[in-house]
Amino acid sequence: MEKNEWKIVLLGAGNVGYHLGKQLKTCGLNLVQIFSRQESKAQQLSAITDVPYVTRMEYVMPNADLYILAVNDSAISIVADQLKIEHGLVVHTSGGTSSTVLQPHFQRFGAFYPLQTFSISRKIIFDNIPICVFAKTRIDEDFLFKIGTHISQKVYRIGDEQRTMLHIAAVFVNNFVNHLFQIGYDILEKEKLHFDLLRPLILETALKVQDHLPKEMQTGPARRGDVATVERHLQYLEAFPSYLELYKSITKDIQSHSII
Amino acid sequence: MEKNEWKIVLLGAGNVGYHLGKQLKTCGLNLVQIFSRQESKAQQLSAITDVPYVTRMEYVMPNADLYILAVNDSAISIVADQLKIEHGLVVHTSGGTSSTVLQPHFQRFGAFYPLQTFSISRKIIFDNIPICVFAKTRIDEDFLFKIGTHISQKVYRIGDEQRTMLHIAAVFVNNFVNHLFQIGYDILEKEKLHFDLLRPLILETALKVQDHLPKEMQTGPARRGDVATVERHLQYLEAFPSYLELYKSITKDIQSHSII
Repeated sequence: MEKNEWKIVLLGAGNVGYHLGKQLKTCGLNLVQIFSRQESKAQQLSAITDVPYVTRMEYVMPNADLYILAVNDSAISIVADQLKIEHGLVVHTSGGTSSTVLQPHFQRFGAFYPLQTFSISRKIIFDNIPICVFAKTRIDEDFLFKIGTHISQKVYRIGDEQRTMLHIAAVFVNNFVNHLFQIGYDILEKEKLHFDLLRPLILETALKVQDHLPKEMQTGPARRGDVATVERHLQYLEAFPSYLELYKSITKDIQSHSII
Repeated sequence: MEKNEWKIVLLGAGNVGYHLGKQLKTCGLNLVQIFSRQESKAQQLSAITDVPYVTRMEYVMPNADLYILAVNDSAISIVADQLKIEHGLVVHTSGGTSSTVLQPHFQRFGAFYPLQTFSISRKIIFDNIPICVFAKTRIDEDFLFKIGTHISQKVYRIGDEQRTMLHIAAVFVNNFVNHLFQIGYDILEKEKLHFDLLRPLILETALKVQDHLPKEMQTGPARRGDVATVERHLQYLEAFPSYLELYKSITKDIQSHSII
């Protein structure tokens, strides 16, 4: 069967669904239907992809080859429970959810996890996004892998356990990093300084690690064992008790890493 | 006096000195001499700027208008002690050092802090880099401000205390963020997964915050109070005790932030 014959149904038109749907269509895959309970979102994606949408589960076509559940983690089981299909492969797009949550509902199941942070309002270069595929059977995983290679240059076979670790790593470099940005913001705000002061540094830090390893890039008072500066920083941070604790523990962590 | 008449001497040809020297010259300022004890570095910067260099302090010209000490924090006092000049203004480029360390040595002193992470090997767009200037007298600060506007579009007057806070914020969004990248690396390495998997996410996280506020961007299990996922992550992190602690404290921090 050729790629444009596989019938794909996309369930969910939020941040992930929006970009995934757009890319599937752009890459010439046969996206045949979009489902979203939120009509405005379904309509929005339908309009740019020219793919029909439905807002009720009972209208989802039963005979597609692939169903992609691009819904919130907490909605996966609910949608899976309501999805009545013939024999297609069903995958979710969640990093933090085992594919086995689909097992009670479908014979063929797996995961199709694009490792990126998506917002409908932001353009994104999809070709670079790592797609992590997994399916219960090798033949289904090969199928997902093929779909993956049509929409991205980077497709990986990643099992459920590994995907969980990957998701944890993603939490560190995305959610937790963003929290450190917030801390930077808070510190500057107290001094009535604009967050713009930090933006070029933030960007350059991320750009550097695109072709270097983090350990090659580490600098700063903790790394060089500059106790005087660390002490002074701790003093200044007394106005921010919880950040003080974080400063201490990350500094300790960097120092023990430096020894290794 | 016009900008190309101010005689500037740059002391230090490391990461900061290299980029600053290049930019001063590119922008038509009158960089008249480079000093570095490390001849290879002095030579390298001299070659690309076409400015003569010296490697001994006694050869530094005494009658320049501005001396920029782009040396390591720990070397500032040492260099300041050896620098014998007539009446020029002396500044260091350190975020983490009070300008008053120069007070015992010079009548006119201040700071000229480019807020960025520099590596000789990386090209950098200097025009965007925030330059934080401070001098003991208003007239000297005005002079530094003017120099700043010649090499960057963003120049700020930032006092010693404020610069310390800014430096602390920079430690959070650069050194500490880089440590979180390292944690991501370590987690993936244990699973024999390539760090490339995280790179697009890291870049997009930094790009998003260029035109959004961190609080608008926060997502993830901690933010949405997804206790089940957090618990599962903690379980999986048992192989990394120090990261487990960090996971807990940042998660707690994000949660208390979300309540505000």
